[in-house]
Amino acid sequence: MECAVVGGGAWGSALAHLLASGAHGVRLWAREPDVVEHVNTAHANPRFLPGVSLHPGIRATGSMEEALHAAALVLYVAPSHVIREVVRAGAVFVRNDAVAVVATKGLEQGTLAVMTDVVRAELPARAVVALSGPSFALEVAQGMPTAVVAASESHDAAAVVQQALSSAVFRVYSNDDVMGVELGGALKNVMAVATGMAEGVGLGLNSRAALITRGLAEMTRLGVSLGARGETFAGLAGMGDLVLTCTGALSRNRHVGVEVGRGRPLDQVLAGMESVAEGVTTTRGAHALAERQGIEMPIVNAVRRILFEGHRPSTAIADLMGRELRSERDT
Amino acid sequence: MECAVVGGGAWGSALAHLLASGAHGVRLWAREPDVVEHVNTAHANPRFLPGVSLHPGIRATGSMEEALHAAALVLYVAPSHVIREVVRAGAVFVRNDAVAVVATKGLEQGTLAVMTDVVRAELPARAVVALSGPSFALEVAQGMPTAVVAASESHDAAAVVQQALSSAVFRVYSNDDVMGVELGGALKNVMAVATGMAEGVGLGLNSRAALITRGLAEMTRLGVSLGARGETFAGLAGMGDLVLTCTGALSRNRHVGVEVGRGRPLDQVLAGMESVAEGVTTTRGAHALAERQGIEMPIVNAVRRILFEGHRPSTAIADLMGRELRSERDT
Repeated sequence: MECAVVGGGAWGSALAHLLASGAHGVRLWAREPDVVEHVNTAHANPRFLPGVSLHPGIRATGSMEEALHAAALVLYVAPSHVIREVVRAGAVFVRNDAVAVVATKGLEQGTLAVMTDVVRAELPARAVVALSGPSFALEVAQGMPTAVVAASESHDAAAVVQQALSSAVFRVYSNDDVMGVELGGALKNVMAVATGMAEGVGLGLNSRAALITRGLAEMTRLGVSLGARGETFAGLAGMGDLVLTCTGALSRNRHVGVEVGRGRPLDQVLAGMESVAEGVTTTRGAHALAERQGIEMPIVNAVRRILFEGHRPSTAIADLMGRELRSERDT
Repeated sequence: MECAVVGGGAWGSALAHLLASGAHGVRLWAREPDVVEHVNTAHANPRFLPGVSLHPGIRATGSMEEALHAAALVLYVAPSHVIREVVRAGAVFVRNDAVAVVATKGLEQGTLAVMTDVVRAELPARAVVALSGPSFALEVAQGMPTAVVAASESHDAAAVVQQALSSAVFRVYSNDDVMGVELGGALKNVMAVATGMAEGVGLGLNSRAALITRGLAEMTRLGVSLGARGETFAGLAGMGDLVLTCTGALSRNRHVGVEVGRGRPLDQVLAGMESVAEGVTTTRGAHALAERQGIEMPIVNAVRRILFEGHRPSTAIADLMGRELRSERDT
């Protein structure tokens, strides 16, 4: 099958590698000329996925038309703050029968829309599938066993994605709870920032485990209020991805949390980063959604106050550990 | 309040330290004379909790009578395979109005009973409380913020335990789902062995996250079949403790899993250990309970086959990742 991957970051490169290894034709669109150059000549992406050899069959390009015109499957992996413009820029080249896969995790600022809604609005009449779950790009590119979820209201579209991406080491399970799968992936990044902050102010693993537990509870509350199923948050795209991001190798979001927790200003921390920390933007979106829905999200709120309102991390996180956990007494 | 801690391992020592720091009188019963000696003279337990200074108010003893006769609160922290004999040995010295707290996590071999049932049988007419949740002993002894659950059918007894143990950094929440809290603590040790095995055969963090997610699902299934509440498994004593044990510092249970996963025989691994790996015994108990209840527990079963039936870890774990995860497709 001819496939396009739109976005040349770590996850886009890993997905392109996975598809090419499955004998699909793969065009990888990247904004950065050096990424295009490296992928085509050295079969590597040292800027975003260092140390990994990519499949030589991947053809990188800076042209949307070249990337998209032949593709029956289009994977969008651009950061959430640019996904609308990126989809729009290539929309005229996307086949009418193409299936769109959204691997970006976040909420659009302003509209508070999940990523599939943004893509659907810019690509009318195509089936849209959300891809999420515990999947560090590096491990996927290295062929380590991974299980993810493909969520769509269209059973057929989800089946196309399962078929195209599944291998002996990469398993794709379908789910029709698109909202739950997308919110799991988006909100877990806020929890990763929170976990990093706890680490940054000197809390230990006992606190981290309590924070992750309470984090999933508030993610689930918000999701259910928006029509998602609670059980989706207990699955791979909820608990699975949350546990990976909060306990695995230091992610971008946890890194931001750790540094801010140690007292470094947010601007300074973000300035030093090559990739986007989605959790920072998602914190605002999650807070706005929670306000709109009338849902209490104490962890999201503490992260927001620390990131954007100058609250002291040590006070806010300690306060959170105390106040929030009191409510478990009632269960 | 006069308190007794029965069991001088890492967790018993940390709980004794916590109580003594809260200005309670604390007698610590330990089987090992060197532990008694070290606690009384050096205020330390280098054998089981190295590197930690214990509160000098803790009085260690090898005499059950001395430990128990005055105590209004008795905490049992002996390994599961000896808890019945340890409780029985001291039963005549326990005050009639004492509250018994069970901090041991496991299932009794043969009877498949949870620990509170064992203690209740040996100490009739006393209120019994299960203490569980994400709590590495070392962090508790170091004063790191920790949140746990005290579960009892007696609200008053749970309140006594909350009152006695709670501090600014150690929070105790009550729960009346004793079965759920106990099974969460017991079964998570089997999942820790499984996680270690996955690591030992070379799987990565993506696989670990998937395994933890599926692990909680099968723990919850068994618990609900035994009358526990599903939500208890989403709380501190379920998900919280599971995440801590499977992702935190290398626990005894994970260590066993890693070594067996690498191909070392179980006997040899266990022979080199100072403390008991509860997950090994609990694997048999959990499997027997699952059979009795007619519940599928593929992870427990894979761990059992590897530990006791000579199945190859690499085949069994890979098989598990494949077969088990297929079922998520239906959700």
